[in-house]
Formats: sequence, structure tokens, C-alpha cells
Amino acid sequence: MLTAAPATARRRILLGPGPSEVSARVREAMARPLLGHLDPEFLGLMTQTQDMLRRLFRTTNPLTFPVSGTGSAGMEACFVNLLEPGERALICVNGQFGARMADVATRTGADVVSLERPWGKVFDADEIERGLKLHRPKLVAIVHAETSTGALQPLSELGRMCREHDALLVVDAVTSLGGLPVETDLWQIDAIYSGTQKCLSVPPGLAPVSFGPRAIQALEARKRPVQSWYLDITMIQRYWGSERFYHHTAPISMIYALHEGLRVIEEEGLEKCWERHRRTHGALKAGLEAFGMELVPDSENQLPTLNAVRVPRGIDEASLRQRLLSEYGIEIGGGLGEFKGKIWRIGLMGESSRSANVGLLLGAMEESLAGMGFGMRDALTAMEKYLQAQKAG
Amino acid sequence: MLTAAPATARRRILLGPGPSEVSARVREAMARPLLGHLDPEFLGLMTQTQDMLRRLFRTTNPLTFPVSGTGSAGMEACFVNLLEPGERALICVNGQFGARMADVATRTGADVVSLERPWGKVFDADEIERGLKLHRPKLVAIVHAETSTGALQPLSELGRMCREHDALLVVDAVTSLGGLPVETDLWQIDAIYSGTQKCLSVPPGLAPVSFGPRAIQALEARKRPVQSWYLDITMIQRYWGSERFYHHTAPISMIYALHEGLRVIEEEGLEKCWERHRRTHGALKAGLEAFGMELVPDSENQLPTLNAVRVPRGIDEASLRQRLLSEYGIEIGGGLGEFKGKIWRIGLMGESSRSANVGLLLGAMEESLAGMGFGMRDALTAMEKYLQAQKAG
Repeated sequence: MLTAAPATARRRILLGPGPSEVSARVREAMARPLLGHLDPEFLGLMTQTQDMLRRLFRTTNPLTFPVSGTGSAGMEACFVNLLEPGERALICVNGQFGARMADVATRTGADVVSLERPWGKVFDADEIERGLKLHRPKLVAIVHAETSTGALQPLSELGRMCREHDALLVVDAVTSLGGLPVETDLWQIDAIYSGTQKCLSVPPGLAPVSFGPRAIQALEARKRPVQSWYLDITMIQRYWGSERFYHHTAPISMIYALHEGLRVIEEEGLEKCWERHRRTHGALKAGLEAFGMELVPDSENQLPTLNAVRVPRGIDEASLRQRLLSEYGIEIGGGLGEFKGKIWRIGLMGESSRSANVGLLLGAMEESLAGMGFGMRDALTAMEKYLQAQKAG
Repeated sequence: MLTAAPATARRRILLGPGPSEVSARVREAMARPLLGHLDPEFLGLMTQTQDMLRRLFRTTNPLTFPVSGTGSAGMEACFVNLLEPGERALICVNGQFGARMADVATRTGADVVSLERPWGKVFDADEIERGLKLHRPKLVAIVHAETSTGALQPLSELGRMCREHDALLVVDAVTSLGGLPVETDLWQIDAIYSGTQKCLSVPPGLAPVSFGPRAIQALEARKRPVQSWYLDITMIQRYWGSERFYHHTAPISMIYALHEGLRVIEEEGLEKCWERHRRTHGALKAGLEAFGMELVPDSENQLPTLNAVRVPRGIDEASLRQRLLSEYGIEIGGGLGEFKGKIWRIGLMGESSRSANVGLLLGAMEESLAGMGFGMRDALTAMEKYLQAQKAG
């Protein structure tokens, strides 16, 4: 019987669509000895984690906690709890994760209406209001930061509109939470989910969620049990609420990591953290533009956290990614779905959103592309523009 | 804005129903820098992890992998994939986790028939065969190691019987896998799930599962999509199978921990690991008996991994647990459901299953009970019996 070799600790610089870099401090938190999931010390840690999550989501919602699964489990938790068979959901689809929401929602037996926009585009409020009037859904779901296209969806008007039409607003904030403004209460979002492995720079494995009073009313008015036992918020809230009643064994070490990751953000200051993401994105964009490359979304709807770059004609996108990985240890992502082979996805999220990473990536791209026979016009200019953008902030 | 204090690293000795102790070696594995979930290095680690899981489950099933959630997510993965609305499931219920299986299975819309035995008792094969003949279910589900009662369910005849009656056999091995024989192929088990936080001594957060050829046939014959997107094995198998096609971001750091935890077991040797659990349980039992305490299940059906101890008349069970925790840093568990307030649950699983822990616990129990005014008859004898049992092996 062969025993597997110990895992290597090969170092990567993670500039893909997630996971992002995780600091030694957060990784060391995971290495702490375990407490039981009902240990008074651990219950205290849960309370602190929930307080920090509320500040991060900008909400006072009591029902704010991390679901014991990755971001997609957070997505599923929203739909299986808020929808019952036959109820109508209006799902905004302009990329892979909107499409995933529609798939997840359909599996609840709900009557799902997809509102579609081309990949990379965003929805305007009028379009959604027409959908609300026409379809009268129980729930509208939309992706704030579409990881497959790099598009940033404006949200500030939607909550008010949904209330006027008596619909719940569900938001996917997987690639925005912590990296740009997410105003759960101000924007009147009823249910919101995220993941730990993006702008929070905590390993993948938890999905922070928050449910507001209207979502809780909907939960309480359910006629049937939630179809998922594991994700049943009516039961989970007894553990993450004041009772601390056992539901399933919480992923202790991951919660240590989240607790420490949230402390890191509070030490930097949330607004400063947003500002850092904005600046780093600007620097990358200036460099890419000097290479003659452009981002997929219109300039007013580009995510600072995830840069979807059109692959210039004649370049094999996979070869560049392979070179970056093997020669520089840099991971960037390829396209998903209809963008497969057509874009690169460069994540600048959490700990990965650093000027040094931008400089390194631009330099490595220039060298790699030259090595592949593509002399980038103005490679030096790209670095200059990047440095100028850095200076200008 | 207040920043939460850093988490303390208060040391506990975890002798409850899980999580069990996690070695520094496994905790340090979690602290490794992250790889992306599609990084070739990480894909190699996945392959090794799956190979080790197959040896642990004693199976050649290709579809063997860790579900991205705790043990209950593994349970739900089995039922939502193998059941469709209206199909009949026969669920054996003799404790909390059997009851949970029935709850989870009912939420699929299946026609669930519960076969019941008193808590602490086990099922005999004839009883299940009568159920098979009477109800003609698509699937029979049973708990191998009932964590709420400490009962060990014999399984060796059930697979053959289920095949004769054209039913699938689903087994909960959460508190047995790694701590006592679990023979997936030999016992003809079609689907089996476990958790990492028991005998594998890896933090909670993953649920190893294995699906055999008959389960895969059932999956392929489904008429409707699986109701859970997150747990849909027909999609997840594209990531954990040879394609390595993205489904959801794998919980990287938890998989590092599982990989290392499985290496620890292979280094000790699986049979030696079972034997250690058996010996340590024997030592604890000898000591408890000398205290005049008895275990819940009949002597031939006692789990080596989880000892359910009846609380002697007149002792407040919660006070003892609180004393053990506050004065000795030892965690043991209380009863669940109908055993609440009536039993203690002492786990000797994985790294926690050590002679030193048994000696420490017996000594601490004797001192604590004396402090609570209960002089245990023969406290010294208890320690003597324990030492004799240790010597005799």
C-alpha cells in the first residue's frame, strides 16, 4: 500500500477569479487547536464573527452568519429558503452566475422567469421595473459583481422598486463584498450572500449570508419545509441565533479563519479597503490599455475586483496562462461559458489587490507575450502608465 | 467601530462526540499557502486524496470524494441524488441520526417508511428483510455508528439482502470510518458517507462519500434533476472525475487537511488504527464499570469510538461536564433528544483515542464527582482496572 507524498507548498501568486491570496496571519488562525462547536469560547467567537459580518454587510440584520459551504451553498441557501414550488422568481441573467441562480431556483420547483442581457452588459432599473410589473414575482435575484464577465451591476434603486412591487430582492455579492461598497440596509436588500475566497482573503469553504426582516417574514410564512435540511435557515438560525442549539457541527477551523480575516479588514478600515481595490484596478487597467488590451464591460460598469480582459486577436489565451503559471507562479483565470477562450480573468481581490502584484503581472505578461512572438506595442509605455496611475492614485 | 479581539488559543482535550483532537501536523497542513482549485498541483493532490479515501472506505469505487460540507451535507448528498419524489425509502431509526436521515429523505418528496427500534438498540437482519419484503423500497438507509446512542449496527448481511430485493443500501459511517472496520465493497454498500471531524481527526467541514456502480445506475436513470445544485453528484463528478471541470470552488485548505489526515492514518496502518480504538475503548469501559457506570448499548453492540454512559441516579450530568471543561479543559458531550440529561457521550476518536486521555478523564471524573459530593465507590479500583485493561491489551 502506497502512502501519498506530503503535499508540496508550491507558492502561487493568486490573481485569478478566486481563491485570492490568504495572508500568513489568517492561515495561522486556521492552524489553532480546535474548540468544540458548543464550547463557550467558541460561542463567543461566533458572536464576534457575526458582529463583524454585520459591519461588513452594512446591516443590522440579526440573521447574519456564514453558511457551512462555499459561495454556491450561500446562493442555494437563499433560493431554497425563500422559494416554494409554483412561486415566481425573476432572475437577472447576464453571465455564468446569473445562469447558475436560475438553475438553482428552478430546482426548488419555483416558476422561474429569466430576464436576459448579453454577457458583459448590466441591467438598467427600468428594465427590471418592467419585469416586476409584467411578472409580479415573489423574488428578484441579481448578481452585483458578475465573476464571469467583470461587470458591476448598480443596485441602489432596486430595493425600493422591489418593495413597491412587493417582491424580495436577493443579491449575489460573492465578488464584491469587502472589495467595493455593498450597502445591504441602505439599498434595501432582503437577502444577500457572498463567499470567503474573494475579497475577504479567507480560504474557500464558507458563505456569509444576511437575511432581513422581509425575508424572515417570507420564511415564517412558508407552507412546506425547506427542501434542504443542511441549508434550512429555520433550523440553522437556532444555532447562529441566541439559542446556540446544535444543528450540524460547524466548520470550526474555517470560522477561525473568517474571524481573523474580518479582523484584518477592520484594522485596515472597510472604506480604505474599497479604495485600495479601486486604485489597484486603475493601475492594472492603465497598463493593459497601454498594451492595447481592453476590458469586457463598459467603462462605467467595470468591477475593481475582477478584470475581464478581451484576448487580442492571434494570441492563444491558454498558452499565456500556462506560461504565467509555470514561469512566474502567477495564476490568472480563463473565460467560462460563452467567454471560454475569449477572455482572461484577472482578480485583484483582498490580499491579492496589491500594487506589487499589478507590476509583477504586467511585467510577466509583457515577457511572456514577447516569448510567444507577440511584441506588445509600447510595453515600456505600459509600465510607465501603470506607474503614473499609481502616483496619481 | 470596535475590532474583535484575536481569538484565544485555549487548549481543550476533545473527548466529546466530535470534533476530535486534530494533530499539529494536520493543522499545519491547513496553514499552507493556497493553490487554485484548477491548479495542476492541486489536481494532483485531489487524485492522491481520492486514492487514500478509496483505501479507507475499502472500495474500488471511482466516485469517491469529499463533499464540500460537514457530515450532514454528505447525508443529504446521498438522499437527494438517489431519491425522486414518490420513490420509497426504508429508513432505520434507532437514534438522532437515523431520525435525521428520515427527515432529509422526506424533503426529497420520497415516500419514507421509518423502521424503528428503541434508542440504543440495533436492528437484526430479519427485521430489515421483513421490511424489504413488505415495503419494496428503492433504498434502505441505516446508521453504522449511531453517535447519539453509542450503538454499533452490524452490517455484513444487509448488502446481500438489499440486492436480493433490488434495493440500494445507503450507510451512515460518520462515527465509524477510520475507527472500526468499514468494508464498503465486501459488505456491498451502494452509497456511504462520513465526516472528517470524528475518527479522521481532521477539522469539520468535509464529508467523504463513495458511490458504487448500482448507485451510479440509479443516478443515470433519474427522471428529474437533483433538487440540490450544490450537492448534485451528476455535476460534481465532472470535477472529482477525470475531467476536472469546474463546478464550485473546492474548499482548498480543508482538502489539504484531509490529505494530511489520511496520510497519518496510512502511516499508522488502518488495521492498527482500528485496534488502537478497540483497546482504548476497553480501557475506558473497564474504568467506568469500576465506577459503577454502564454503557447504553448491549455489550456486543458498543462502539469503540463513542461511549454513551448512563448518568448514575442523583448526579447532575451538566455539572460534571462543566467541571471537566472549566477545571481540566476536557470536553465530553451530553445526550441528544430523548437521551438529553440522561447520558454522557465520551468520544475516543482518531487522535483523541489515546490511553493518556482515558487515564486523565477517569482521574478527572473521580476528582470532579468527589468535589460534587459523590464519592465514587472504588475510585482507586477504577484506575487499577483501567491499568489492567491497558496491560492486557
